[in-house]
Amino acid sequence: MGIETKLKKLGITLPEAPAAVAAYQPWIQTGNLIFTSGQLPFRDGQIAYEGKLGSELSEEDGYQAARQCALNAIAQLKAASGNLDKIQKIVRIEGYVHCADGFRGHPQVLNGASDLVAEIFEEKGIHTRLALGINEMPLNAAVQLAMTAEVDD
Amino acid sequence: MGIETKLKKLGITLPEAPAAVAAYQPWIQTGNLIFTSGQLPFRDGQIAYEGKLGSELSEEDGYQAARQCALNAIAQLKAASGNLDKIQKIVRIEGYVHCADGFRGHPQVLNGASDLVAEIFEEKGIHTRLALGINEMPLNAAVQLAMTAEVDD
Amino acid sequence: MGIETKLKKLGITLPEAPAAVAAYQPWIQTGNLIFTSGQLPFRDGQIAYEGKLGSELSEEDGYQAARQCALNAIAQLKAASGNLDKIQKIVRIEGYVHCADGFRGHPQVLNGASDLVAEIFEEKGIHTRLALGINEMPLNAAVQLAMTAEVDD
Repeated sequence: MGIETKLKKLGITLPEAPAAVAAYQPWIQTGNLIFTSGQLPFRDGQIAYEGKLGSELSEEDGYQAARQCALNAIAQLKAASGNLDKIQKIVRIEGYVHCADGFRGHPQVLNGASDLVAEIFEEKGIHTRLALGINEMPLNAAVQLAMTAEVDD
Repeated sequence: MGIETKLKKLGITLPEAPAAVAAYQPWIQTGNLIFTSGQLPFRDGQIAYEGKLGSELSEEDGYQAARQCALNAIAQLKAASGNLDKIQKIVRIEGYVHCADGFRGHPQVLNGASDLVAEIFEEKGIHTRLALGINEMPLNAAVQLAMTAEVDD
Repeated sequence: MGIETKLKKLGITLPEAPAAVAAYQPWIQTGNLIFTSGQLPFRDGQIAYEGKLGSELSEEDGYQAARQCALNAIAQLKAASGNLDKIQKIVRIEGYVHCADGFRGHPQVLNGASDLVAEIFEEKGIHTRLALGINEMPLNAAVQLAMTAEVDD
């Protein structure tokens, strides 16, 4: 089953790939690798999840924020590859969680991204991951996420 | 001298490559590059160094934590390559230090990883490094470390 | 116009590529990719911008710190490639801003790096970016920045 059919079956509509928020590009390809810039949980042009996990936001909010970042990252991969069926591997997800002192639920939050990638790309979505807490985030976003993928020639 | 002989001579026993703590994989290969997921200082299934540098842990604890993360990362490289003699270069070490306000000893802490890699891989272990302070870390680990390596075809 | 001519025209003198501050190397090449280690805002052997954005330093200081880090990173690319005209793409800039609670101006700060890269490399300087806040930074530096570039064979 192609990825677009899969997305339809899952009821997932990819957003427009968000523009960069400053003087850089949202994705770049070098050799067979596509790198995305750090994706924020933009939805319809707004940050959908603002604030810090562990004080202003719940772990479930964080999960949804990570999922939204991943949707945006996949939209970038589509813009970069022209066709998501050309993605051979999701190589790496770097997840940064905007969090207050004492918050330790980073893995659960970032599963919002990992679960989405597994649903959509199945065995090609198996990835490595970095999960870190960040004291202050651009635009007060709850999560920032970068994705690296391997693409067919 | 092969790397396994070297490890024996140094008295270093590689741990079992730790499993991922959530919905992702501990390593992935793309082209000639192996990326590990963020490694924590697991030893025998437990986080061996918990807490923040600069308040709960000493710099020496941090050094040992970084060394343990690097041991785990090298165990992942072995699982990925099948044979550590196939590792041509340690390309990059990303080191994240869980630290309290005012802690600045990140370079000394991460030398725990860099020194180990130099002992084991010698000139092939020459790597680039990123050293950052992190306010909150998954599982309250003292250090998180990711490694990128170049492997033979 | 070659990059060296361009630098002259812009009135930019690249610094000597700074040495690593601990047991690692300032750059490494694997395949067509050059990775730099995390660059600090060293100028003439001293950290030129020390402290936290949002408490001790202004956004303009941060912009200049990011620019200085980028100058140092480009000096590393020159050391690695031998000739900046061989750089085909600036693939990625990872920018870490040393910041106090409540600081959110990461994108403006890191434009100090992105703008410089655009001036020097023009269309080849179009890059992806990661912008993160960090609670504690090695050597109390205001910014740390790593660059990945694609180089000609």
